[in-house]
Amino acid sequence: MSEPLLLMTPGPTRVPERVLRAGARPMIHHRTPEFSQVLGAMIEGLKPVFGTREPVLPVHTTGRGAMEAAICNLFSPGDAVAVCCNGKFGEMWAELAQVYGLVVYRISTDWNRSATSNDVDEAFGSNPRIKAVLVAYCDTANGVRNDIEGIARVARQRGRLVLVDGVSALGGMPFSFDEWGVDLAVTASQKCLMSSPGLAFVVLGERAWSATKTARMPRSYWDFAEIRKHVTKARPETPGTPPVHIVLQVAEALALMQEEGLEQVYRRHEDMADLARRGVAELGLSLQCPDLDAFSSTVTAVALPAAIPPKALRDAIKRRGILTAAGLGIFEPGGFRIGHMGDIRPSDVTRTLGAVKQALDELSVTAR
Amino acid sequence: MSEPLLLMTPGPTRVPERVLRAGARPMIHHRTPEFSQVLGAMIEGLKPVFGTREPVLPVHTTGRGAMEAAICNLFSPGDAVAVCCNGKFGEMWAELAQVYGLVVYRISTDWNRSATSNDVDEAFGSNPRIKAVLVAYCDTANGVRNDIEGIARVARQRGRLVLVDGVSALGGMPFSFDEWGVDLAVTASQKCLMSSPGLAFVVLGERAWSATKTARMPRSYWDFAEIRKHVTKARPETPGTPPVHIVLQVAEALALMQEEGLEQVYRRHEDMADLARRGVAELGLSLQCPDLDAFSSTVTAVALPAAIPPKALRDAIKRRGILTAAGLGIFEPGGFRIGHMGDIRPSDVTRTLGAVKQALDELSVTAR
Repeated sequence: MSEPLLLMTPGPTRVPERVLRAGARPMIHHRTPEFSQVLGAMIEGLKPVFGTREPVLPVHTTGRGAMEAAICNLFSPGDAVAVCCNGKFGEMWAELAQVYGLVVYRISTDWNRSATSNDVDEAFGSNPRIKAVLVAYCDTANGVRNDIEGIARVARQRGRLVLVDGVSALGGMPFSFDEWGVDLAVTASQKCLMSSPGLAFVVLGERAWSATKTARMPRSYWDFAEIRKHVTKARPETPGTPPVHIVLQVAEALALMQEEGLEQVYRRHEDMADLARRGVAELGLSLQCPDLDAFSSTVTAVALPAAIPPKALRDAIKRRGILTAAGLGIFEPGGFRIGHMGDIRPSDVTRTLGAVKQALDELSVTAR
Repeated sequence: MSEPLLLMTPGPTRVPERVLRAGARPMIHHRTPEFSQVLGAMIEGLKPVFGTREPVLPVHTTGRGAMEAAICNLFSPGDAVAVCCNGKFGEMWAELAQVYGLVVYRISTDWNRSATSNDVDEAFGSNPRIKAVLVAYCDTANGVRNDIEGIARVARQRGRLVLVDGVSALGGMPFSFDEWGVDLAVTASQKCLMSSPGLAFVVLGERAWSATKTARMPRSYWDFAEIRKHVTKARPETPGTPPVHIVLQVAEALALMQEEGLEQVYRRHEDMADLARRGVAELGLSLQCPDLDAFSSTVTAVALPAAIPPKALRDAIKRRGILTAAGLGIFEPGGFRIGHMGDIRPSDVTRTLGAVKQALDELSVTAR
């Protein structure tokens, strides 16, 4: 087989060799002490990633599935929520909430800027029926980092809940579930956690657990209380058959992150983001979100001039062995994205920027 | 690491070396032609396993999750269904249906015998509100094979639907979705399909697709119509991020099954079941279900005399390097199970029977 493409995508990301090997160990049965030990280690390893002392629930689904599960576990049809819709994944929260019969107030709908605590406070103030705000920490559509700390503070003051999609951020950027007072957060295995897609993770705080008690939405497979009951046993387990090899992978990936040190992992992501953004500017391109204080460390969403067709550019980059991602949603026709998360190093970013430059040159030549 | 346990369990089962290696290939992005090709090959390879020409939908969940998804996709709250409850997984259908507000008629509740077309015909006849019958093909609790062909015939005559949990049978026993006139069937990756747990598969017939159009249960993540739309594209894909490495595994496992020949795979399972049942009888033990015409080829559920504690017996077998399964439900206190499905050979069954004999001898010694 030929050399695999370098995945500079906002997930799924490259899986390190050691993690791949962990995922190829002989099958172990999920009702054995050996598996409980790995499951327990994975859960413990995820706590600093979420910044929490609460149990981390493995939910056998995608990040999006876990967001849907969050809605099923916390709400009843007719409940009202505010959703920060300044990107594709904010929109996803809103769409999921609507499917389940929630009343959705779309706030902060400008994709070119981050969602702020003011946006949220205003929505809470003008509508006392709103029980919660749903927001993405990082939206890969525009590379924005929303101010979760500020939004959670407002939610606490107003007595509402805050649910965070942290799928493309957790493990690559600092997150403080307990300290910030977040009520529910979601992430998944295939982004900063450097593993295969196949497993999502959810943490709930005390107020969210209270909400589950009155939530009337039917659920069984992804009933959080049921999962918690199993993972908090002396010998942790899952209610159903878990994706054993993904658990083995994530446990190994967390060991890698511990060896590097979580603070250093975050610094490396910051460095890559700085490198990517400076490089993009040097190429004369601009960013989808010019909001300098609200950059995610995990993805750079690039805006292209009308003369450069994104697909042709990405194809030219791909011919150089590097896979970038298409623009998302409103940014699809005029942009593309460079992911720099998980098992990616500054040298990979540098190589990618070189390929973007060559691709731009090639396009301008063939366009002549 | 020490030699892994021989998994004589009704799933998860041993994953062959070639399949493990396929699951350790470098990550490939799910929106590439390379991944589409593997996904397409997997779907084509699953069609003969289901006995269908319909598209096979990969649903990123467990078998149980796919059963729950089936209920969400086909029914509305208040709909009535009959459920063949002659085992643990029949009971699971019933419990899931109740969570979603269906009216459940439990039929065929004797765990010591198979569910018959007569049981189902009677229920349909006495209650015209019943829209469907939910049944397991094989219930691993008792090793029973229910008469899906006969039950489907009755359902056709009465104009009702039949939904089949084929999780512990498909790929190890013949199944003819199209010919028998089944409306929906479910299976999963970690049993006869010799792969890691992590992916379920669902097939719907025309009548089931019609039912999805009027079903009012909310669903998004596991909306079957959405999944079909994606997998039936010229370049098959999934709506969300699929568990890439599990897809790679299942595609490889199906290649192994094709090399052996599906008919030969079924014969091997029959041979193993014959061997297991004869061996159990020779040890003076009996079966949970004595119904000779209704044995599953994939699992043998053994009944133990009161003098033999199942856990002590299974521990003694485990000390000999073999993992068997505990009895399920009402059979937990007085039985245990030997799975013989997937990558298991007659020699593994023989080795297991030898270990059971030694374990029985050891217990009778220590009990003295």
